[in-house]
Amino acid sequence: MNYRFSKTLEAFSSSAVREILKLTQGSSIISFAGGLPAEEFFPIDAVKEALARVMEGGTSAMQYGLTEGYVPLRQSICKRMAAKGMNVTPDDMMLTTGSQQTIDLLTRIYVDEGDVILVERPTYLAAIQVFQARGARIVSVQSDRHGMDLDDLAAQIREHKPKMVYVNPNFSNPAGRVWSLERRQGLLEACRSNDVLILEDDPYGELRFGTTEVLPSIFSLDQHPEGSCVVYTSTFSKIVAPALRTGWVMGDRSVIRAIAQAKQAADLQSSTLDQQTLYQLMEHFDMDAHIELISTEYEKRMQYMVQLLREKNWPGVVWNDPQGGMFIWLELPPHIDTQALLPTAVQHGVAYVPGVSFYADQPLRNTMRLNFTYSSPEVLKLGMERLDAVLKPVLAGTSSL
Amino acid sequence: MNYRFSKTLEAFSSSAVREILKLTQGSSIISFAGGLPAEEFFPIDAVKEALARVMEGGTSAMQYGLTEGYVPLRQSICKRMAAKGMNVTPDDMMLTTGSQQTIDLLTRIYVDEGDVILVERPTYLAAIQVFQARGARIVSVQSDRHGMDLDDLAAQIREHKPKMVYVNPNFSNPAGRVWSLERRQGLLEACRSNDVLILEDDPYGELRFGTTEVLPSIFSLDQHPEGSCVVYTSTFSKIVAPALRTGWVMGDRSVIRAIAQAKQAADLQSSTLDQQTLYQLMEHFDMDAHIELISTEYEKRMQYMVQLLREKNWPGVVWNDPQGGMFIWLELPPHIDTQALLPTAVQHGVAYVPGVSFYADQPLRNTMRLNFTYSSPEVLKLGMERLDAVLKPVLAGTSSL
Repeated sequence: MNYRFSKTLEAFSSSAVREILKLTQGSSIISFAGGLPAEEFFPIDAVKEALARVMEGGTSAMQYGLTEGYVPLRQSICKRMAAKGMNVTPDDMMLTTGSQQTIDLLTRIYVDEGDVILVERPTYLAAIQVFQARGARIVSVQSDRHGMDLDDLAAQIREHKPKMVYVNPNFSNPAGRVWSLERRQGLLEACRSNDVLILEDDPYGELRFGTTEVLPSIFSLDQHPEGSCVVYTSTFSKIVAPALRTGWVMGDRSVIRAIAQAKQAADLQSSTLDQQTLYQLMEHFDMDAHIELISTEYEKRMQYMVQLLREKNWPGVVWNDPQGGMFIWLELPPHIDTQALLPTAVQHGVAYVPGVSFYADQPLRNTMRLNFTYSSPEVLKLGMERLDAVLKPVLAGTSSL
Repeated sequence: MNYRFSKTLEAFSSSAVREILKLTQGSSIISFAGGLPAEEFFPIDAVKEALARVMEGGTSAMQYGLTEGYVPLRQSICKRMAAKGMNVTPDDMMLTTGSQQTIDLLTRIYVDEGDVILVERPTYLAAIQVFQARGARIVSVQSDRHGMDLDDLAAQIREHKPKMVYVNPNFSNPAGRVWSLERRQGLLEACRSNDVLILEDDPYGELRFGTTEVLPSIFSLDQHPEGSCVVYTSTFSKIVAPALRTGWVMGDRSVIRAIAQAKQAADLQSSTLDQQTLYQLMEHFDMDAHIELISTEYEKRMQYMVQLLREKNWPGVVWNDPQGGMFIWLELPPHIDTQALLPTAVQHGVAYVPGVSFYADQPLRNTMRLNFTYSSPEVLKLGMERLDAVLKPVLAGTSSL
């Protein structure tokens, strides 16, 4: 049999990084690569209790349900979103298999081959994959720690007439960036006056450290939801548990309806058991206290990793000080290619994601993303020692790449 | 905001039928439209026990897992498939969010815009939607109750050089067809010698009535899995519970790998909780006895619906006698358009799926699909009385459509 794969497959096939990182699974390699929550804080007892309540409810958790998702959970999410200034009804939103599915489905119903999508620089790698697979042209906008540069944004909109902008305004993946209010408003105005749809992807917004200011979502700054140029998505993956695979998306009803049509063809619906479990959790478990707990613990881990970075005192290496989220973004001296260095690191028993994966174009090859949420302090320490053993000679110029 | 949806959306937007059927949800309308299992036979106690075992296992059911799915469940499925003559390892297969997702992902990695896909006549409506959304050209092959007509198949392959054939060889949706061994072998030979990929979709194969012969899957007739021109998919939706949203797909490793890459972009992975629950069920629950139980009950319901059909004695109306599966396929006199009749039926409190939805081209508008598994005998009786009230005047020519 001579297999004749589609053009689309080529867009998926380029990741050597993924193959290397696969080697780290189930091994003794310390991985700072994934975006995994700490397992020791999963609310396992509360989930058990929630499951018991679900099963008391009889067979409804077993039957086919609505493509848009379990209505009571949608109502609970609407209540939670309203407290953040986003007023929508269950008809203006739906549930997906994590926010990754929102990115995929919205792209399918909104973007044609050749359409331009603007992204931050750097941006979430799995969004790039979705956009590439769709045959979109991805153009990155100059960005700093406050968000996209509004002048460059205006220039790119003029030049490329984009269909969509994809942004991560809170503790962005990978750069840990928080968009300023001014940039949020600026993006909104530029997009509204040019009919550009904004996909606001907010998986980390609730993992806020210390006294970091709460900024309004771009969706809440716009009219919402009717006629909004913002589609907002978030997820339970980072605040409860990823394996329950439940995200949500909110927006104008015509957009939600279109996403639901695409979802029906894609998988009919997501897991009802997961959705009913999350509903019971939201009703009977103190979600806010839990989020405060994990945010506090993650902040401690972040501070410890930053402390270790300071102690290592690597010449020419700089990083952000994350105000939330899951990642530290490292910039190394320009001559270091972190992708070329990855196999050596894996040999030394430590893994990271090379920054190259997060750029739509002209990558800064001397960057890397480190996750600080998954590893305990002991493991963080050991992993940083291993990374030190890899980086020291390269930084000192005594080892070539 | 002026929304500019993609071309793809148009492929999803055509279903007036879906909108009408939506009205039936949560109402007192008796629906023979869905493909829903009977809720009263869901193995709820066994699922409770399985969930308890999963939660005893600690936090692993909560963390991100492999895109390909939970390995122990894949091993259990491989064992079960081996007993049916399909020998694959967990690396030659993966889990999806129901077999619907297999159809979608395989189409994305294998089919380009303009490629031809051959289908049965009639065929599964949600497969048509996926193929249309992809921009494929769908060509139907003349089919009778034994499967595709092999002469027409050969002619269509010569004329259209298709990339893929989609078939439902056991108790097909909607026609309840069982492919003969000769047709299975004929399809395989024609496809193998022309490099046409076969997607063998087998959700109903285990819902077998009475002494109906077990025929080998097309996948098992080919070399398997390496170099096979068959990709096989099935699901737990019909034999355990749809809401657990777990299907599987088996095939050549290069195809499985490509599907996994597409799945990673689509939703990262399906629900681990569902997968671990199904694994515990397969280990500690007598799945075969359960399948025998529901098959027996479904056969009784089918026989009762057939008995009611005979009693109604509608002139010029014929149907298949299902040997398994979930549907009776009705052909009415040629002047009756079942789609035009649907609003009247819904007004009378009964729903079905008009046959037009199951044709890629040149639909037989005088057909309808009736589900017999979901409704209890009492409800079946009442629903058929309502349908009788709608059909009698139309069949007698005393009411126009």
